[in-house]
Amino acid sequence: MARLRFRISISLDGYVAGPDQSIRQPLGAGGERLHHWATALESWRRAHGMEGGEVNASTTVMEESLVNIGATIMGRHMFGGHPGGWDERDPWRGWWGEEPPFHHPVFVLTRHPRPPLTLGDTRFHFVTDGIGSALEQARRAAGGRDVALAGGAHAARQYLAAGWVDEMELHLVPVLLGGGERLFEQMGDDLHGLSLVRTIATPAVVHLKFERSPGAR
Amino acid sequence: MARLRFRISISLDGYVAGPDQSIRQPLGAGGERLHHWATALESWRRAHGMEGGEVNASTTVMEESLVNIGATIMGRHMFGGHPGGWDERDPWRGWWGEEPPFHHPVFVLTRHPRPPLTLGDTRFHFVTDGIGSALEQARRAAGGRDVALAGGAHAARQYLAAGWVDEMELHLVPVLLGGGERLFEQMGDDLHGLSLVRTIATPAVVHLKFERSPGAR
Repeated sequence: MARLRFRISISLDGYVAGPDQSIRQPLGAGGERLHHWATALESWRRAHGMEGGEVNASTTVMEESLVNIGATIMGRHMFGGHPGGWDERDPWRGWWGEEPPFHHPVFVLTRHPRPPLTLGDTRFHFVTDGIGSALEQARRAAGGRDVALAGGAHAARQYLAAGWVDEMELHLVPVLLGGGERLFEQMGDDLHGLSLVRTIATPAVVHLKFERSPGAR
Repeated sequence: MARLRFRISISLDGYVAGPDQSIRQPLGAGGERLHHWATALESWRRAHGMEGGEVNASTTVMEESLVNIGATIMGRHMFGGHPGGWDERDPWRGWWGEEPPFHHPVFVLTRHPRPPLTLGDTRFHFVTDGIGSALEQARRAAGGRDVALAGGAHAARQYLAAGWVDEMELHLVPVLLGGGERLFEQMGDDLHGLSLVRTIATPAVVHLKFERSPGAR
């Protein structure tokens, strides 16, 4: 069956976004420091239509993350827009402009119904009946490929707590953000069978790959 | 000058001790999971007078941590005893029995004065005039060797925030504790010039070594 693969950049003090997140500063104060390792890579830049960039030990990790993904799930906050619901006259169309980098169906968890939105070759579906339904729809849409869980922290915690994440890669960035949104909060002491299977490090980031052992839940 | 070297085991969710710490359970619930990687090692067991144990990629890290240390600083909680002060009729003598494994002077940060305590070849000094004084005394006692900062989290945070830690090694254990005492809390977003210089990983622990770049404060 299609695997649910989650990856996220996280600071040494456990934050996946800095303090004071807002529409103008969606990653919070200092949050962009979590992503320098990625945006500096040639492989990331190419996937986002940009030239140049580095090739280093993180390249393998980045390239792995981009292959064999047939659908993406994300939380409402990651898609963005007004928290009270969708503005029907001027609906939010995501952070990614007219050509989002997904190129496959994206399922957005929300409490507010909305018709699908197509931008370039990415179609966003808005799912109001829970994380199980979103996963089922994404698996069906992925056509045998895997499903990416893109975040943010709130959505990720729900899938982790349900024990539905098959692979988790934490990109641990050796900086402090000092506040913001922590990934592992109210999660208890159970990784639901996920264990560390690979570590790849550069001075800028340590990639910690976890997989669920066969049979573990 | 003698360097101040700090190392500590930390969970994936950032805790250096589990919830519900007490005299009976000094590491908190589940806290012993942070130390399995160490106590399984032949090098740790030998330093603590025990036989057997493993040799693996963590051995180098453990052996490094044991050499060229001339004095140790620790917080009051790590030394232990009644929080209200020392009981003069039955004073707490630490967790380590009559032959503590330090074999050099140990400086305990406390608000309560107490004469030095000698157990085996370890002499404990109780320092009431602050972290600067403890560091100065430890450096003098270390006789040209380095000073180890043993923890706990509260003492470590004070030295980190002052920018006095020259080397920090985090033994990141890929488990969740779900609560307890976090190392990086109220620390702001500044590592005071410490940057990641080496990563050594096994499935049980990822050793992240930070050093202060020359000139950085």
